[in-house]
Amino acid sequence: MPDAVVLLSGGLDSYTAAAMVAAEGYALNALTIRYGQVHGREVQAARAVARALGVRRCTELELDLRGVAASALTGASAVPKDRPIDASIPSTYVPARNTIFLSLALAWAETLGASDLVIGVNALDYSGYPDCRPEYIAAFERMAALATKAGVEGGRLRIHTPLVQLSKADIIRRGLALGLDYGLTHSCYDPRPDGRACGHCDSCVLRAKGFAEAGALDPALR
Amino acid sequence: MPDAVVLLSGGLDSYTAAAMVAAEGYALNALTIRYGQVHGREVQAARAVARALGVRRCTELELDLRGVAASALTGASAVPKDRPIDASIPSTYVPARNTIFLSLALAWAETLGASDLVIGVNALDYSGYPDCRPEYIAAFERMAALATKAGVEGGRLRIHTPLVQLSKADIIRRGLALGLDYGLTHSCYDPRPDGRACGHCDSCVLRAKGFAEAGALDPALR
Repeated sequence: MPDAVVLLSGGLDSYTAAAMVAAEGYALNALTIRYGQVHGREVQAARAVARALGVRRCTELELDLRGVAASALTGASAVPKDRPIDASIPSTYVPARNTIFLSLALAWAETLGASDLVIGVNALDYSGYPDCRPEYIAAFERMAALATKAGVEGGRLRIHTPLVQLSKADIIRRGLALGLDYGLTHSCYDPRPDGRACGHCDSCVLRAKGFAEAGALDPALR
Repeated sequence: MPDAVVLLSGGLDSYTAAAMVAAEGYALNALTIRYGQVHGREVQAARAVARALGVRRCTELELDLRGVAASALTGASAVPKDRPIDASIPSTYVPARNTIFLSLALAWAETLGASDLVIGVNALDYSGYPDCRPEYIAAFERMAALATKAGVEGGRLRIHTPLVQLSKADIIRRGLALGLDYGLTHSCYDPRPDGRACGHCDSCVLRAKGFAEAGALDPALR
């Protein structure tokens, strides 16, 4: 089975994207980045998800972005609650986050001799982040072909984005059909001290809407 | 003065590139990345260079790439000595290094509201790294325009590569004309225990050739 490097956050999207690519016949290598999120709950979820996926390799990388990337997710401001989710870019946007994460995944892929990356970006039910759009992913692929030894030697890098055009409800339907346990995942940007989801940030609102539209119960709320 | 973010390594090239862009009227913000180099000598040099440049802001970021990027520079193999420097990509190549570094610089630039990055890449007297070529830099700029909130809002990001088409001798001539003190810099990939340059790695060989062709003495060898 060819190796693929998957960016695994502990959320619902990256878990589903990884499982969809594994179902296509790839061996998964999970890369989780501890980037100074205001809470560590997400990283615990990523470990549980990696175990459930049966990944071939698993790497956690410490990269404290607080000194360079101001965001509500790195503690620079409060996480907004119950805001209307429109086309604007919210304060939870982390400058260049997916570019940094894909670059690190690219390094690991080249080291492993892999030419496939997986990222659970979604351009439909999402928070308006520019680095979740297909045109951005295509530009990263073009850049990567010039950036690496593997690219220069004729290897082609492919970034798999199986969720990019799915609604959150469709993502959940696909995951449930693959037998995924969403009780392992954590999506909330601002969990309570006991680790439970706040229910009011963008991520909680989009998740609840997705489960409702899919006609399913969110096992993480049990 | 507009802000520019410069990737500062402690070597001769990034010091000269930074000084050239400062001479154009930019305020420098130095980003130094401790990525698991086998020696810390380079980071000390970066601090001295940042002081000499009179930077506006200075950030050191810890990012241990050893788990994801195998290279002679991250200790995966021995640094080659006295090899013929040809078009091949040597074992000191660090997978995706400039992509990772530029991504981090991009994040900081967006946080600062800056739209200028500086990197001392050189495609003439260099070790054959793919991510030092102008076509790679142009592809990164195109990707960055789609990656960020600043780009989406119409800001243009510019990556300054003032050394890209200069020989090492010309880089040194420009730097000496700007009054730079190359005694502060460190280029060697594999310094001796006392911190002195080995004289035999690619970086030492190219540096010595540059000083010889420029008809100058290397103050770091005094």
